[in-house]
Amino acid sequence: MMRAGMMDRRGLLAGAAAGGAMLTLGGRASAATPDLKAIRAQIDKRHDEAVQRLQTWIRQPSICAEGVGMEEGCKLTMEMLKDAGFQSVTRMPTDGAPGIFATLDAGAPRTVGLYFMYDVKQVNPAEWISPPFEANLMDKPGFGKVLYGRGAVNQKGPEATFLAALHAIRGAGKKLPVNLVLVAEGEEEIASPHFPQVVRRPEVLKALSKCGEVWMPMAGQDPDGSVGINLGAKGAVELELISTGAKWGRGPANDIHSSLKAVLDSPAWHLVQALTTLVSADGNDPAIDGWYEHVKPLTARQKELIAQAVAAQDEKEVMKQMGVQHWVRDLPYQAAMERLAAEPTVNIQGLVGGYTGVGGKTILPSRAVAKIDLRLVPDQTAADCIAKLKAHLAKRGFGDIEVKVTGGYDPTQTEETSGLIQSELAVYRRRGLTPLMNPRLAGSWPGYIFTGAPVSKPAGHFGLGHGSGAHAPNEYYVIESSNPKVEGMDGATQSYVEFLYQLASTR
Amino acid sequence: MMRAGMMDRRGLLAGAAAGGAMLTLGGRASAATPDLKAIRAQIDKRHDEAVQRLQTWIRQPSICAEGVGMEEGCKLTMEMLKDAGFQSVTRMPTDGAPGIFATLDAGAPRTVGLYFMYDVKQVNPAEWISPPFEANLMDKPGFGKVLYGRGAVNQKGPEATFLAALHAIRGAGKKLPVNLVLVAEGEEEIASPHFPQVVRRPEVLKALSKCGEVWMPMAGQDPDGSVGINLGAKGAVELELISTGAKWGRGPANDIHSSLKAVLDSPAWHLVQALTTLVSADGNDPAIDGWYEHVKPLTARQKELIAQAVAAQDEKEVMKQMGVQHWVRDLPYQAAMERLAAEPTVNIQGLVGGYTGVGGKTILPSRAVAKIDLRLVPDQTAADCIAKLKAHLAKRGFGDIEVKVTGGYDPTQTEETSGLIQSELAVYRRRGLTPLMNPRLAGSWPGYIFTGAPVSKPAGHFGLGHGSGAHAPNEYYVIESSNPKVEGMDGATQSYVEFLYQLASTR
Repeated sequence: MMRAGMMDRRGLLAGAAAGGAMLTLGGRASAATPDLKAIRAQIDKRHDEAVQRLQTWIRQPSICAEGVGMEEGCKLTMEMLKDAGFQSVTRMPTDGAPGIFATLDAGAPRTVGLYFMYDVKQVNPAEWISPPFEANLMDKPGFGKVLYGRGAVNQKGPEATFLAALHAIRGAGKKLPVNLVLVAEGEEEIASPHFPQVVRRPEVLKALSKCGEVWMPMAGQDPDGSVGINLGAKGAVELELISTGAKWGRGPANDIHSSLKAVLDSPAWHLVQALTTLVSADGNDPAIDGWYEHVKPLTARQKELIAQAVAAQDEKEVMKQMGVQHWVRDLPYQAAMERLAAEPTVNIQGLVGGYTGVGGKTILPSRAVAKIDLRLVPDQTAADCIAKLKAHLAKRGFGDIEVKVTGGYDPTQTEETSGLIQSELAVYRRRGLTPLMNPRLAGSWPGYIFTGAPVSKPAGHFGLGHGSGAHAPNEYYVIESSNPKVEGMDGATQSYVEFLYQLASTR
Repeated sequence: MMRAGMMDRRGLLAGAAAGGAMLTLGGRASAATPDLKAIRAQIDKRHDEAVQRLQTWIRQPSICAEGVGMEEGCKLTMEMLKDAGFQSVTRMPTDGAPGIFATLDAGAPRTVGLYFMYDVKQVNPAEWISPPFEANLMDKPGFGKVLYGRGAVNQKGPEATFLAALHAIRGAGKKLPVNLVLVAEGEEEIASPHFPQVVRRPEVLKALSKCGEVWMPMAGQDPDGSVGINLGAKGAVELELISTGAKWGRGPANDIHSSLKAVLDSPAWHLVQALTTLVSADGNDPAIDGWYEHVKPLTARQKELIAQAVAAQDEKEVMKQMGVQHWVRDLPYQAAMERLAAEPTVNIQGLVGGYTGVGGKTILPSRAVAKIDLRLVPDQTAADCIAKLKAHLAKRGFGDIEVKVTGGYDPTQTEETSGLIQSELAVYRRRGLTPLMNPRLAGSWPGYIFTGAPVSKPAGHFGLGHGSGAHAPNEYYVIESSNPKVEGMDGATQSYVEFLYQLASTR
């Protein structure tokens, strides 16, 4: 819910990697990866089976926002986990869609946490070149053979690819080099409102406490083959500010003729006046009382990482691709990118009030709504910010304006020195890739559930391969890549194998 | 476009007349009305013909906002005018829908101007109990036999009733006691954008210059039989304030992911900040530079008329019917009603920006729109106010926000001492009615075209009879009244006969 496809997960800055890093298909032999050849043979052998697994998964829609196929989707995901070797797979009821808690005990000294989602974003089938739940394979010029479908890249494709890695390792007669603890949810696309109910169950917390980290498979490559690593992400709160005559006790209870504005208060003006108090005069800085109380400035290292990314990018090209002419306050690129990582925001997603059709209609509306998202940075929390917003409004005579929170994440941050990040770097670098590190993604993902108390583990994403179109029509995932710099599904599978062995060798 | 049905045309204050005035059906003999009996016999005889004329008219939809049936509607109206005795009926092309200029020379010493509209408001047929363009006659409990149809009361019903009066006078072998000059338009419901092109043609101005006044037939009775007289109406301007990244040159040119708010300006915040400058902190007074420059305070007589109306009303009942609990600033009733007549307003009709569906969507919108109406009082003008608004925005750094004006009227005011108003009073009073006078309607009608330069004549509405539902579903007009206090179509026809004779006797 909080993201906008791949760009957002990898971040603005990580979008273009430095240099023309060449990807060596098949991977170099790694000290940490014994007998990769046998496993790779299994990957190749099981290619069709892996593709079919993904197709089966996509053909079962699970759209939480619409309440479609959630039980079926949960059950299918559980079966897939069992098939992949998880010995214990438990449906975890929540106040919303069920989650999943699964463990795979390989008798290994090290345990790794995994985060899966089995829900997908809504679709408008009319916009698709291939029906979104048919999971058809088609040629995409410049990319190769791709699979089109909702969830292809977000997130069933990478997740199914990870499961293919488990099948390949087992197929090669190997024991998994790490134990696995997996938590999954069916509400990622609606901002994970009940996922904490899964993670914070005692048996789950106990299992996660044994993990060195928690990560999610992702198709991490840009079309040029480059990858990035996000060390964190802003938190986000989505909410509606709802001003009504009924709740206010002033103005009309129902829409009324606009000539009566002379004698009646306006809930729409009330909302506008309240909104104005939330930001600086230029609309760019939050002005909510106490908003910066817990905001931590960027560290020198974080600024250094941003500078590295900025140096590797062409600002003009970035602006052109985004269709923008100025950063706020005409900041230079480095300062703008620091701001992107460092600053909390109050954004208007939408305004809806009164008459919204063509032309005008002479009404004084009884109701007006602003759809808002707040982006939070460490050490802000969603709960504290929501409380601050309510107090701010109440103090200024806007206490009647309803603050309807529809979802929220705290910020998440993972140390560059953690085993998770160092393992990612090691695998990518062996592949000849030089990932740029983004100290903090401006978008959001529910990593705080793992990086925050009580779990408090490093958390992130890993994976090669490419796809795009998350939350958009014609979402795809590359199955057989025609670009030597980009991995197809088998190469991505191998990247997960390498990563598991790398994690196994990490303290 | 600027009105909300009958309430609005008669005004808040005139809604409830003083006392329990009894209406004498058939009317008392008037000094000014010779041989009413013969004309009344013609009215009765021609009842079915008059109803059919109205049905024919309604069955030809002319919806200017949708471009439906305008040529046909104009042609049919012209034929009806010819049938009613107008010797000259001319189609008047404009840059929009055609108008009509018609004259009836009765060789009388006095000439009276008439204003007709032949367009009607849009419909949603699903909301109607009888199809809006079938003009069916049905029983309406408490009212009698009514005609349902779009235009039944706004304005084809009263206009057809006036034409029936002309047919009755001619049918009784009488010459009309006054000459008539009629101007009609097909764009009333879209705020008469091209009507000045009709009225300000030299031949029309010349004809209107001979008129003592210009008036429009209307079904002026409330369900309790009472009538009111409006001496004026506020002006109105409808416009959209459109803030876009493209025009601003800042922020996104297209909707973009909301995480980028940290580095991109927001056209939605830009709009909110601009809006805030337009009104006082409570949203109730315009705060646009120079807005009160030409605002005239109410006269002592205007306040007296308001006091009379206030005294005749039950404030609690009025508030209950409107569904409101407080006037602005908790004003007492008299002060609130003076404000309703005296004060210009800036109203938000609607807010539309970014994502307007259910829940949220993490976008930074490239465009946000506020739909605004301005209500103006003498001596403000639409043109001057639009210029002031633009200057105000430009001065504050909002010059990029487009001010898209979709319609506008100047205020209109007619002297209580004019022949028009005194004739209305005379006819109503002979009927035993004691109309309350509203010094200024808070709603709007294009009377300024007649009361303003260069025509500069008294202008208003007159007529008995009842209907309701203008701009709403199930618009109706009473054909045969079951309420002795309310006139049906024949009684309304007679009121027009009486009014014409009254005007003839007025200097």
